[in-house]
Amino acid sequence: MSIEPVLFVNLENICHNYRLLKETFPDTDIAGVVKNNAYGLGADKVAKALYTHESCRTFFVAYPQEGEQLRPHVPDAAIYVLQGFDPDAAELYTKNRLIPIVNTPETLRAADKLGLPLAIQLETGLNRLGLSLDQAQNLDVATREKTALILSHLASADEADNPQNRSQLENFEKFFTLFPNAKKTLAASDGAALGADFTFDIIRAGAFLYGICTFPQLADRQKKVAELTAALLQIKSLHAGDKVGYNATFTAAKEMKMGVVSIGYGDGLFRALSNKGRVFVKQGDALYTAPIIGRVSMDNIMCDLSEIPDAVLEKTRHVYLLTDNYNVDEMGKDAGTIGYEVLSALGRGQRTIKDYTPPLSSL
Amino acid sequence: MSIEPVLFVNLENICHNYRLLKETFPDTDIAGVVKNNAYGLGADKVAKALYTHESCRTFFVAYPQEGEQLRPHVPDAAIYVLQGFDPDAAELYTKNRLIPIVNTPETLRAADKLGLPLAIQLETGLNRLGLSLDQAQNLDVATREKTALILSHLASADEADNPQNRSQLENFEKFFTLFPNAKKTLAASDGAALGADFTFDIIRAGAFLYGICTFPQLADRQKKVAELTAALLQIKSLHAGDKVGYNATFTAAKEMKMGVVSIGYGDGLFRALSNKGRVFVKQGDALYTAPIIGRVSMDNIMCDLSEIPDAVLEKTRHVYLLTDNYNVDEMGKDAGTIGYEVLSALGRGQRTIKDYTPPLSSL
Repeated sequence: MSIEPVLFVNLENICHNYRLLKETFPDTDIAGVVKNNAYGLGADKVAKALYTHESCRTFFVAYPQEGEQLRPHVPDAAIYVLQGFDPDAAELYTKNRLIPIVNTPETLRAADKLGLPLAIQLETGLNRLGLSLDQAQNLDVATREKTALILSHLASADEADNPQNRSQLENFEKFFTLFPNAKKTLAASDGAALGADFTFDIIRAGAFLYGICTFPQLADRQKKVAELTAALLQIKSLHAGDKVGYNATFTAAKEMKMGVVSIGYGDGLFRALSNKGRVFVKQGDALYTAPIIGRVSMDNIMCDLSEIPDAVLEKTRHVYLLTDNYNVDEMGKDAGTIGYEVLSALGRGQRTIKDYTPPLSSL
Repeated sequence: MSIEPVLFVNLENICHNYRLLKETFPDTDIAGVVKNNAYGLGADKVAKALYTHESCRTFFVAYPQEGEQLRPHVPDAAIYVLQGFDPDAAELYTKNRLIPIVNTPETLRAADKLGLPLAIQLETGLNRLGLSLDQAQNLDVATREKTALILSHLASADEADNPQNRSQLENFEKFFTLFPNAKKTLAASDGAALGADFTFDIIRAGAFLYGICTFPQLADRQKKVAELTAALLQIKSLHAGDKVGYNATFTAAKEMKMGVVSIGYGDGLFRALSNKGRVFVKQGDALYTAPIIGRVSMDNIMCDLSEIPDAVLEKTRHVYLLTDNYNVDEMGKDAGTIGYEVLSALGRGQRTIKDYTPPLSSL
C-alpha cells in the first residue's frame, strides 16, 4: 500500500441510500445528482452504479462538459445541465442529448432554436439562477406549453421549520398554470425530507446518496459512503515546551507521542482543521482518536498519539481521516463548514487514490 | 469562450520570479518546488518552463508518483522526494532516478540498500518530518560520510523577527560535522528572505515563483502568476428585503443589481468567502469591485453589481476572481487562510480550464 492518501468509495452504499429514497417515495422519480464529479466521488462510477443496479434514468450535472463525460455510462438516461445553456458549447448539448435547464429568456430562445427539450429554472426565493415570474409570464404560449420541465431550488431545506420553505413552495406553485405540461421538481434530498408537498415529479438526490446527513428521518438507515486514509510516516517523542508545525501554534505541555501523516491542505484537507481536527487509529474493533496538533501544512499533518498504546502504534501504518464515526459532516463541523464542501474538496485530491467497492470490473 | 472557470497561468512570470531569486543569490542553486502539481498550477508545465528557459536542474516533489510524472519533462535534473522513501514504491525511485529525502533510520537503511543517493531531512524545531540529532549521531560513519544532502525546514520564516528562525539555524548547524560531505538546504523562498545565513547550497523556491508574497524585499519586482475568471450567467434585480442564497444570509437593504457567477466551492472557491469575498469586473482600464453576497454554493456565487454602470455590465461576460490587484494572498485573507491554500484549492478545480502563457507549443 502506497503512502498516498486513499479515498475508499462504497458504491454499494450509494445504491443502498438511493433505494432508501426510492422506498420512501415509490411514486417519484429519484434522480442522481452527479455534478462536480459526484461531489468528488467520481461521476462516471457513481452514475454507472445507479444506472446499472438501481435503474436510475435521470441525472443532473452542472456543466455540459460534465454531461458529455457522463453520456457513455448512462446511454438512454435523461441528463439535465443545471448551469443552463452555453451557446458556445451548443454542439455538446445536441451531440450528447443534454437538456439545458435555462435560466434567462435569451438562453431559452437559443436552446429552443436548436430544438432542445425545454427545461426552465424558476426563481422562487433563493435568488440564484432562475427566471422570474414576470419573465415567465412574458414567454409566448407555445413556448410555455411545450416546456417539459420546471425546476426550482430551496434555500433553507435543511431548516425544517423555516417559513422560507413554504414561501418558496407557494412561489413555485404560481408558475404551474403557465407551464401546464411540464414535469416539476423542487426538492433535493433535504427538500424531500420536508414532506410529500415538496417532492412533485423528481427528487434530485445528491448529498444523501453520498452519506451526508440531509434527511433526518432516514439518518439511522442511511449508510456512510467514504473512508479516507493516509500514511503514518513517522512517530516522534515531544518534550514539554516543544513546538509543533508552522508558526509554532501548538506547544507540548508534557511528554507526548506525535505522529506525522502524509496528507495536507494540498490534498483538500482544510487548513481550518489546524489544532481542531481529529484522525483515528483502528485496530480490530478498537478505535483511537488522535487530535490534530499544530497547523495543517500542504503535505502533512501532525497528530497527538499519546493516548494510543505502543503495541497498537507498532502495527499502525495508516490513520483514518474519514470513517463511520467521523463522516464529512463531523469534519465539516470541525472545519467550520459543511460536509458538502469537505467531500468535494477531499474528492478533488489529485494525489489521492480512489478505491471503489465493489471493484469496478463488477459494475 | 465556455462558461467553465478559466485559470490563466503565466509561465513567463514564473520564470521572471525565478530570475529575481537567481539574481539575488547568484551563487546558490535555486530549486523549483513543484510538489502538489506546482501548488495547483501544473507541475509538468511549470517544471518544463523552468528547465528550458532558466536551466533549473533541481526540483522538489512530495511523492514518488509526482516524481515519475515529472521525469520526462526534466530529463537530467535532480528530483528530490520530500515525503521520504516509500518501500512499497521502490521501483518508482530507481526507475526515475528519484532521490528520497528520508526521515527515519528505517527508511534510510531501506533506501541505502537500493543504492539510492542519501538525502536526509533533519528535525530542527518544526517538529514535522525529520531525523533527530540523536538518531543522526547513531548512524554509522560511512553512512554519514556518503550522505549527499541534508535538509531542514523553517517553521516561522514568514516572521522575520521570530527567534525561532535563528534557533532552527543553530540546531541545523549542530548536524554539520556529522555530514561532512553533504550539501545543505534550509530555506524555502521565505527563509531566503531572512538573509544569506539561511540560504546555504540550495533555496527551495515554490510560493515565490507562483506569485505568493514570501520575500518582502522583492515584492515590488515579483510578478503575479495566476488570473481566474468565471462566467457571469445572469443579472437580476433585487428589491429591499429580498434574501440571497442558502439560508438567506444576505438581505438586500435597497434595490440592487445582483450577478450569478459560474464558480463555487466545487471549484475550490472557499465557502468561507460567503458574504466576505470579492470579484471584479474589468472594462478597458477600469476595474470595478463586486462583493460576494450570500453563501458560496457548490457551483455558483452571487455578487453585488450595484456600483457597476449598466453600459459596462451589458458587455460583461466574465468576472475576475483572481487578478493583479487581488491575488491569492488577498483572497486568503478574505477566506481566513493563506495564499498557498487558496492557490492549491483553485488549482485542483476539475472543471476549471487552465490557459497557459506562453502557449505550451512554444515551451
